[in-house]
Amino acid sequence: MSQSIKKMAVLTSGGDSPGMNAAIRSVVRTCAYYKIECYGVYRGYQGLIEGDFKEMNARSVKGIINKGGTILKSARSTEFRTPEGRKKAYDNLRAMGIDALVVIGGDGTFTGAIVLNKEFGFPVMGIPGTIDNDIFGTTHTLGYDTALNTVVDAIDKIRDTASSHNRLFFVEVMGRDVGHIALNAGVGAGAEEILIPEEDLGLDRLLESLERSRLSGKSSSIVVVAEGDKTGKNVFELKEYVEENLPDYDVRVSVLGHMQRGGSPSCFDRVLASRMGVTAVESILEGKTNYMVGLLNDKIELTPLENAVKGKSKIDIELLRVSDIMTT
Amino acid sequence: MSQSIKKMAVLTSGGDSPGMNAAIRSVVRTCAYYKIECYGVYRGYQGLIEGDFKEMNARSVKGIINKGGTILKSARSTEFRTPEGRKKAYDNLRAMGIDALVVIGGDGTFTGAIVLNKEFGFPVMGIPGTIDNDIFGTTHTLGYDTALNTVVDAIDKIRDTASSHNRLFFVEVMGRDVGHIALNAGVGAGAEEILIPEEDLGLDRLLESLERSRLSGKSSSIVVVAEGDKTGKNVFELKEYVEENLPDYDVRVSVLGHMQRGGSPSCFDRVLASRMGVTAVESILEGKTNYMVGLLNDKIELTPLENAVKGKSKIDIELLRVSDIMTT
Amino acid sequence: MSQSIKKMAVLTSGGDSPGMNAAIRSVVRTCAYYKIECYGVYRGYQGLIEGDFKEMNARSVKGIINKGGTILKSARSTEFRTPEGRKKAYDNLRAMGIDALVVIGGDGTFTGAIVLNKEFGFPVMGIPGTIDNDIFGTTHTLGYDTALNTVVDAIDKIRDTASSHNRLFFVEVMGRDVGHIALNAGVGAGAEEILIPEEDLGLDRLLESLERSRLSGKSSSIVVVAEGDKTGKNVFELKEYVEENLPDYDVRVSVLGHMQRGGSPSCFDRVLASRMGVTAVESILEGKTNYMVGLLNDKIELTPLENAVKGKSKIDIELLRVSDIMTT
Amino acid sequence: MSQSIKKMAVLTSGGDSPGMNAAIRSVVRTCAYYKIECYGVYRGYQGLIEGDFKEMNARSVKGIINKGGTILKSARSTEFRTPEGRKKAYDNLRAMGIDALVVIGGDGTFTGAIVLNKEFGFPVMGIPGTIDNDIFGTTHTLGYDTALNTVVDAIDKIRDTASSHNRLFFVEVMGRDVGHIALNAGVGAGAEEILIPEEDLGLDRLLESLERSRLSGKSSSIVVVAEGDKTGKNVFELKEYVEENLPDYDVRVSVLGHMQRGGSPSCFDRVLASRMGVTAVESILEGKTNYMVGLLNDKIELTPLENAVKGKSKIDIELLRVSDIMTT
Repeated sequence: MSQSIKKMAVLTSGGDSPGMNAAIRSVVRTCAYYKIECYGVYRGYQGLIEGDFKEMNARSVKGIINKGGTILKSARSTEFRTPEGRKKAYDNLRAMGIDALVVIGGDGTFTGAIVLNKEFGFPVMGIPGTIDNDIFGTTHTLGYDTALNTVVDAIDKIRDTASSHNRLFFVEVMGRDVGHIALNAGVGAGAEEILIPEEDLGLDRLLESLERSRLSGKSSSIVVVAEGDKTGKNVFELKEYVEENLPDYDVRVSVLGHMQRGGSPSCFDRVLASRMGVTAVESILEGKTNYMVGLLNDKIELTPLENAVKGKSKIDIELLRVSDIMTT
Repeated sequence: MSQSIKKMAVLTSGGDSPGMNAAIRSVVRTCAYYKIECYGVYRGYQGLIEGDFKEMNARSVKGIINKGGTILKSARSTEFRTPEGRKKAYDNLRAMGIDALVVIGGDGTFTGAIVLNKEFGFPVMGIPGTIDNDIFGTTHTLGYDTALNTVVDAIDKIRDTASSHNRLFFVEVMGRDVGHIALNAGVGAGAEEILIPEEDLGLDRLLESLERSRLSGKSSSIVVVAEGDKTGKNVFELKEYVEENLPDYDVRVSVLGHMQRGGSPSCFDRVLASRMGVTAVESILEGKTNYMVGLLNDKIELTPLENAVKGKSKIDIELLRVSDIMTT
Repeated sequence: MSQSIKKMAVLTSGGDSPGMNAAIRSVVRTCAYYKIECYGVYRGYQGLIEGDFKEMNARSVKGIINKGGTILKSARSTEFRTPEGRKKAYDNLRAMGIDALVVIGGDGTFTGAIVLNKEFGFPVMGIPGTIDNDIFGTTHTLGYDTALNTVVDAIDKIRDTASSHNRLFFVEVMGRDVGHIALNAGVGAGAEEILIPEEDLGLDRLLESLERSRLSGKSSSIVVVAEGDKTGKNVFELKEYVEENLPDYDVRVSVLGHMQRGGSPSCFDRVLASRMGVTAVESILEGKTNYMVGLLNDKIELTPLENAVKGKSKIDIELLRVSDIMTT
Repeated sequence: MSQSIKKMAVLTSGGDSPGMNAAIRSVVRTCAYYKIECYGVYRGYQGLIEGDFKEMNARSVKGIINKGGTILKSARSTEFRTPEGRKKAYDNLRAMGIDALVVIGGDGTFTGAIVLNKEFGFPVMGIPGTIDNDIFGTTHTLGYDTALNTVVDAIDKIRDTASSHNRLFFVEVMGRDVGHIALNAGVGAGAEEILIPEEDLGLDRLLESLERSRLSGKSSSIVVVAEGDKTGKNVFELKEYVEENLPDYDVRVSVLGHMQRGGSPSCFDRVLASRMGVTAVESILEGKTNYMVGLLNDKIELTPLENAVKGKSKIDIELLRVSDIMTT
């Protein structure tokens, strides 16, 4: 074990996700286990710049494993994008005697950590926390599994009213530029169509499919639309388009929005966060830094942080085929 | 007991709500208990016109007490607004030998039943089913309690992300022209402000209140907005307005939408539906018709259907005061 | 408004229930609103004896409205049953300069407050918090509505497996000596039989009913049993008894246990708690003490604390009849 | 594609689990997609013997993806353990012209299918459906992920009351002879101790650990106990043992029981079931039979059915270490 590491810090940055608190808890308790001092940094990189640190022990993270959001808060920091801002951040870390920094978040969070490491040689370690699952080097990001359950639960409710009225619903879900949430939640909710950025179904084929569905006696339909979808139309425009072209349809729109980011994490996300936190701290103690802790083939594996940012997370194309078969 | 009643029919109409299925089950089983034949009418008044009836027994309604939506479906019927349409509906009821009709729904549903009764003397009975709770003669409509839980659950999730980012959220909830859902769910979710049609807070006072809240150290805020609110601005315009006037705020909008109508009914809604169905059928058997079955002072009471439509459901003004005190 | 009241204290005691935190929040914030100092007392009467007080302000109760349990903790105090213990408690209240005490709990909690008042003339006010709903002077105690939803949700899950296997389940629910939870959750979950202390169905009639149910083609059955039921047999003995007498039945038992006491409170319980807390504090300020704040006919009303303890909470007998009709 | 396959059948057997309905739906719809006739067999092997078949099409499985339990029901069949019983089952399959059978269940279900195949050469395919996750050849069985969420949700509720009263709870969870549910849900719920069959902690070490936990200031504790745990004591005996040896502890027991088997499946289980059903049918069409469809390294893979039964599912030993660190 690396003798030089005596103090670590942990922060959350970017969009929050369920499981971030469980990951903070795991980092803090693993530090406690190895008698490493641990500091929480509030409001991400902005807190790093402002020196908003707080020492944490095993009791500081009591009762948070099942809470959504992040007790360390998150924020965007324009100042951290300047060399002066980053210098302040680095100076604060040094002044506190901190030897390594664990960052929990997504792409932007990791990019910040990489720059900090490049400019000052400061050791960093990343834990992927975002509901979007858009990170290379891990099959699951923290919060993704919880968000899928939140989305299917919401669509189940919408299905109740859709079936009662023989309506067509366009349901927009999150996911930034990737279709993970739309595809998996769409299959899970039994959606009749799924529109994702990775595949341009085309508006003509959407109309054909809906018409075929109606003729086959389907009384209601759910179309799940990823926010980054490439039809060139948002859900409200899609509604108008379908109503103009398929006047028999009574169309409604639902944008699930930010509730997808919250809620108590699923067991999967809590366990994954616990495992990732342990590996993050232990890897640093073993002298391995500038990695992201990920889940690959059900095992916790390290990926160079730079690769995590450069690589591209891919959806399971086979699942698109499953979706087609399911909506026979 | 009225000897003349041998067959009843039941339909759901208007927006569906959790508890409608439990009410259908109760009507059907109470008929079975009294050896009355019971017919389900599909798709509301439109099904009445098209003769879309199905005989139901105790087993037909098995396993539906905990399901959202309505197994009898609901639909709007423009045809029922014409005398010809209503004549067809009446003829179908007569042809089937049906002696009385139980309708489950809101204002519009009851108006339809009243007209049917006025024009043809056909005995009707109403059960209030709508999440909006906007019916006179009952403190609770079926689905209202469930919708409140759905809304606070969604706002709890939004709160997770709002607190993590120190954001202000405008959350639009349903409720048509009344503020029941907004007011109760707002208090239940600990909202900082609640905008309802019954009270025009005024945009200036909203800004003042938000500014005061921010200065007092509140790190995030939830403003619940009823869909029928009278600020003259919708939630998206409110967001813009606040961002222009209070640039320190990072504002987001969430429109909860149709998921509020679905989901498994709460225990309260299931029990209320069971009680209402029994009273609806037993009242008809006792010769009382053209009433709505409601809950008043925790007791099941009858209100003339006409009064239910003409009267106005009022919010609990005292609860506005409670909300103010809670957001001290 | 009473000029003499400058400081209040609040405690929770007895079995915890969802909504207690919302009530604490309401008491604390109402005090803040009226510029009254407010102290939280930890671990109920034991904390009163040990002087375990903490000053609370509006921020102290942030983020607790949706949390189960009680942040003030609860405990049994044998010492408070002695005159010496109560003297210590009183002396602590006086030493802190506290003018009135709000207690949140059930029968036992109120009895403690009454004795404190009788012996030392100390002004007290009660808020009913218990899932059992066994308090006179209120139709709903805090936590009862939430517990009903927890129970029907659990029975819905048990129903899934019961129907898949054509099994009979005895499900034991809480409720001390009264059948409120069993009766309402039983109707809400569509239970085939409900065994409550208020009505002795008799074992013979239970067997008859189950046999009739089986012959009528019911493929599975749920019997909800109140913990205080008077058949003279507990659920495990009931299982054996039925298996001996009705060998065709495959019987299982589920004791729902303490999970019934926890969980995020329903919107109803949160709103009720908010209303009760406001009235508790305002009543004290108006010089009214030694009352319990209750809900009667949907309005917040005061009942002398002594009556609340002496009176008896009654179940809705009519609901038993509804249950019988529903299981036709 | 195998030209000889024109008709398939599907059954569920053994303990039901969430996701079984989603798997039935997937098998039925994949058959529809490939124009294969599909029959549902009711009540598992017993229905096979009694010829309880029903033709199913894409519409037969509408609205079941989110339902717990199994619409095909499940049952134990002693008759199928006899050569005569199996002969009847085989004769029925032949008489119906069925070419292959998909069985959804656990160990016992697969053993039945293997025997059927050995004795009559009848082509079979297995899909692992059990909450226990005790099947070799798949990292996840259908229902396991859902059960984990159900368990952590229940323990979260118990934690509310445990913390309020500073109590110790023994919570017994399902899992037959393996500790998957206990270990993962234990970590997910932040349990202080986890007792599983794979590791004999020893009663002395349990006492030591609890005592250490109490002295370190932990105010409440949750010990998760797998039903197949090897301490030699059941949860009620454990309670007595701890109360005798650690009299400071106020101990409670909760046996979660059959509610763990029910409920709406998680998104993960719905998607997995959809994928498995497609592969089951397509593999048969490709001439591959007598396999189990499993999830390995996030991919759907086939394992010879015999290996699935003979092999042993192993818990993640590393997770025990994570649990120890988390309860520092």
